[in-house]
Amino acid sequence: MKPFSTALTDLFNIQVPIIQAGMIWVSGWKLAAAVSRAGGLGLIGAGSMRPEVLDLHLTRMKDNCDRPFGVNLPVFNPYAEALAEVCLRHEVKIIFSSAGSPKRFTPMFKRAGARVVHVVPSVALAKKVEAAGCDAVVAEGTEAGGHNGFEEITSINLWPSVVDAVRIPVIAAGGIVDGRSMAAAMALGAAGVQVGTRFAATPESSANAGYKDAIVRAGEADVKLYLRRFMPTRTWVNPYVKRTIDAEQRGATREELDELRGSGRARQGIFEGDQEEGELEMGLAASRVEKILGAEQVVREMVDEFWHTIGKLVKNSG
Amino acid sequence: MKPFSTALTDLFNIQVPIIQAGMIWVSGWKLAAAVSRAGGLGLIGAGSMRPEVLDLHLTRMKDNCDRPFGVNLPVFNPYAEALAEVCLRHEVKIIFSSAGSPKRFTPMFKRAGARVVHVVPSVALAKKVEAAGCDAVVAEGTEAGGHNGFEEITSINLWPSVVDAVRIPVIAAGGIVDGRSMAAAMALGAAGVQVGTRFAATPESSANAGYKDAIVRAGEADVKLYLRRFMPTRTWVNPYVKRTIDAEQRGATREELDELRGSGRARQGIFEGDQEEGELEMGLAASRVEKILGAEQVVREMVDEFWHTIGKLVKNSG
Repeated sequence: MKPFSTALTDLFNIQVPIIQAGMIWVSGWKLAAAVSRAGGLGLIGAGSMRPEVLDLHLTRMKDNCDRPFGVNLPVFNPYAEALAEVCLRHEVKIIFSSAGSPKRFTPMFKRAGARVVHVVPSVALAKKVEAAGCDAVVAEGTEAGGHNGFEEITSINLWPSVVDAVRIPVIAAGGIVDGRSMAAAMALGAAGVQVGTRFAATPESSANAGYKDAIVRAGEADVKLYLRRFMPTRTWVNPYVKRTIDAEQRGATREELDELRGSGRARQGIFEGDQEEGELEMGLAASRVEKILGAEQVVREMVDEFWHTIGKLVKNSG
Repeated sequence: MKPFSTALTDLFNIQVPIIQAGMIWVSGWKLAAAVSRAGGLGLIGAGSMRPEVLDLHLTRMKDNCDRPFGVNLPVFNPYAEALAEVCLRHEVKIIFSSAGSPKRFTPMFKRAGARVVHVVPSVALAKKVEAAGCDAVVAEGTEAGGHNGFEEITSINLWPSVVDAVRIPVIAAGGIVDGRSMAAAMALGAAGVQVGTRFAATPESSANAGYKDAIVRAGEADVKLYLRRFMPTRTWVNPYVKRTIDAEQRGATREELDELRGSGRARQGIFEGDQEEGELEMGLAASRVEKILGAEQVVREMVDEFWHTIGKLVKNSG
């Protein structure tokens, strides 16, 4: 595998600028360790973990992988404080924070010597991330699975706009699934990529087989952004989501939507695999995931295709 | 300017694989001639023209440009038949049809020896375009200005999906504004690009100065898709569009929205430059258009940046 040298491989001391997103119910130590061992950067997704569960995952991670890894920490999580404490105790060296202000945890982790990265859906927020002292920023287009910005800015427009607006390295996310999309992101100025859905459909992912099967089955019209006015979320469209979108289109209030939604839908969809009534969060790129492959093979195929794409681009264009 | 050799430059006998979209109220003979003279492919936008106006534009075009050019013909246009007749009479060699079935005009123009291309927002429709005998297909992501597909598939996902699904050359559209996005599109397998908004903001564009000014002013949150349920249209958000989106969110019926909309909003916005009450159709990439430049300079800058981007990609990654 041809090695890379970008601002990101330098920042994290990794071999290839591929980051596996820290997804709820998906990204436990097994997936993160597999990606880090393959030369990328694996992230444990703390968003669906109680502090004691994160503690366990970090212990296992350190026992099973001597390569750099990180933790994704959603700022608005009710356990965010306690989860951050667990990260500090385990001396986690790389934190990706999201869903909240980059000011909340950045100073604490920077003091502890960690690298801090924050996820944003817009240029306006990217500038705040840089001002908060983060080491890099993830520019995540509205294509991404799960919770999304209200702005609905797509990757092709967001990535170069953020690259032009900040000096810290930009990690592209939202729609990246293979070496071609990785090459596109890097043509637009990204120093590397964050990949979610593709890694969610690996044997190492802790998601339910029913959820992985839905990713593989999803066609181009099967993944939508819903709850657009209150909590934009990109998900597989199933009977539950259809009902909710219908209600939104009839002008349903936030309270009506909350009632329709109930609680635990993401767990029900991703962790329990309920294809009818769960929320199976996934990115638009699910339509481009055609089979379940091991995480290491995903990394290797992406890198090979990246170099192949660049070679072809040089050859075919001129 | 370094020459290109792609399936598209061969198909149209042009020097650079950049197509200027045939936009209503924007793309008259002046803009199309400037782009074709610069080595790209200029398209006259027949969608806002009566047949006698198109006739005039074609006469002027032929008097002023001896390079290949084409006409964009929206199939659902009330004058579509008559406009097609004018194209046949003028022996137009390249037709881009859109907004309707590719079967409607393809056989007629193929018999007349023309190249026919059709614009699609999805893989499903791209396959129909290939089956209809078209020579190429424009895969247009939901980022594009003006009328859009209901599917809301974004460029980063649509382009490679269409490339994988058909054998005819794929022209990428929706979000392309510079050499970086052009390189991204070609990394994803496109044989060339179609550019709208960037060319709408040139002196040669027949749009109103107030509309061009809005493109330059537009920020990342100022361009939205509205009328999502009935006639998805991407436009600048002004008081008129805000009122309409509010009504949509309250669950307004199609009739209520039609009444709110009235008629002639696109003309009012694009041709008359009414920034408050017109529909100023533009792509998401308007946020990346920072000044009004001549069409030839746009082509030249795109090509220079394309080659610079590819050189940087090779150098910085490995």
